[in-house]
Amino acid sequence: MEFSSKLLENAVYEMSQLPGIGKRTALRLVLHLLRQPETQTEHLVKALGALRQDIKFCKTCHSISDTDTCDICSNPNRIREIICVVEDIRDVMAIESTGQYRGLYHVLGGKISPLDGIGPLDLNITSLIEKVKSGMVSELIFALSATMEGDTTNFYMYKQLEGIDIKTSTIARGIGVNDELEYADEVTLGRSILNRIPFENALKSS
Amino acid sequence: MEFSSKLLENAVYEMSQLPGIGKRTALRLVLHLLRQPETQTEHLVKALGALRQDIKFCKTCHSISDTDTCDICSNPNRIREIICVVEDIRDVMAIESTGQYRGLYHVLGGKISPLDGIGPLDLNITSLIEKVKSGMVSELIFALSATMEGDTTNFYMYKQLEGIDIKTSTIARGIGVNDELEYADEVTLGRSILNRIPFENALKSS
Repeated sequence: MEFSSKLLENAVYEMSQLPGIGKRTALRLVLHLLRQPETQTEHLVKALGALRQDIKFCKTCHSISDTDTCDICSNPNRIREIICVVEDIRDVMAIESTGQYRGLYHVLGGKISPLDGIGPLDLNITSLIEKVKSGMVSELIFALSATMEGDTTNFYMYKQLEGIDIKTSTIARGIGVNDELEYADEVTLGRSILNRIPFENALKSS
Repeated sequence: MEFSSKLLENAVYEMSQLPGIGKRTALRLVLHLLRQPETQTEHLVKALGALRQDIKFCKTCHSISDTDTCDICSNPNRIREIICVVEDIRDVMAIESTGQYRGLYHVLGGKISPLDGIGPLDLNITSLIEKVKSGMVSELIFALSATMEGDTTNFYMYKQLEGIDIKTSTIARGIGVNDELEYADEVTLGRSILNRIPFENALKSS
């Protein structure tokens, strides 16, 4: 792409550094901003700058928070002995929106992925193990994605917990509540038969 | 979406104001920036801010330029009597990349679209008509998109030029050079038959 303006080229280049945004999309977004009132760009620039500069992470669960301890960790009504281990804040938001979980969270900040250069030490695993060792935790729920990286990370944490008396679980994988069996992939359907649950339990949760 | 951080919520909101970027994508982009070194956000913010503040438009063709007159308009080797009328700078870049055009451009900045509240006075049409009236232009090539808005804009300009002795043309519409006839839409195929060109001309341009 040949640009007639260095300013434009720079803006497009920086925008195209975002994941999933190619040069063409970046150009479209930047030209859109130019057509809008200047305040829109100012607001965007200010919001991104402020976020990156002033961002805080909860000291307890490592979730994004404007305060030292996030709203969930500081909520006295949450069950403190159960911790759900997730990859990032999006998972916290997703689980919170179900209204089905009353425990706390622990945000790892990713999953072990040698290809992306992410090892166990890049994640918030040490602080999780320490939390468990303090004896205040009775159950860990692993809620990572069911990918190779997720499984590796689960297994790594499981090994770190060896010798410690703690209940561990993972979220149930199976056919989505409104999904039709015939469209389910074989692995998921296979697992949902192997991990079938007593009918009375299913009655209770519906 | 429930956010645990006002800073995060703001950044996601502003990001989701961009066209084609919903809340979920905005959150993904913002979280990506948080995982990257702080310099990446700084560069993005600086590039967008600089673009919006210092952006200049060429005084002659209204294209984006870092100087008062853009590189194309100030190039003595371009044919100054032929002006190609386009919607925005992306069209200039697309035509330039063909290497087939040696004339100048005139960027309208959009097309007439009552639904979006864009009338003729919002576009750079007056300056185009003045350019033509000055007598320095021998041909105008309308290269707007073949939509209702594009056709309306073409027609509006055509009416404004009434009584002025100038050649006007539009870019050829037809089947793409590498496209198969059977997959072409009927309107395009129909037009490409109506507007067929002498075989000798086709030989020359291939």
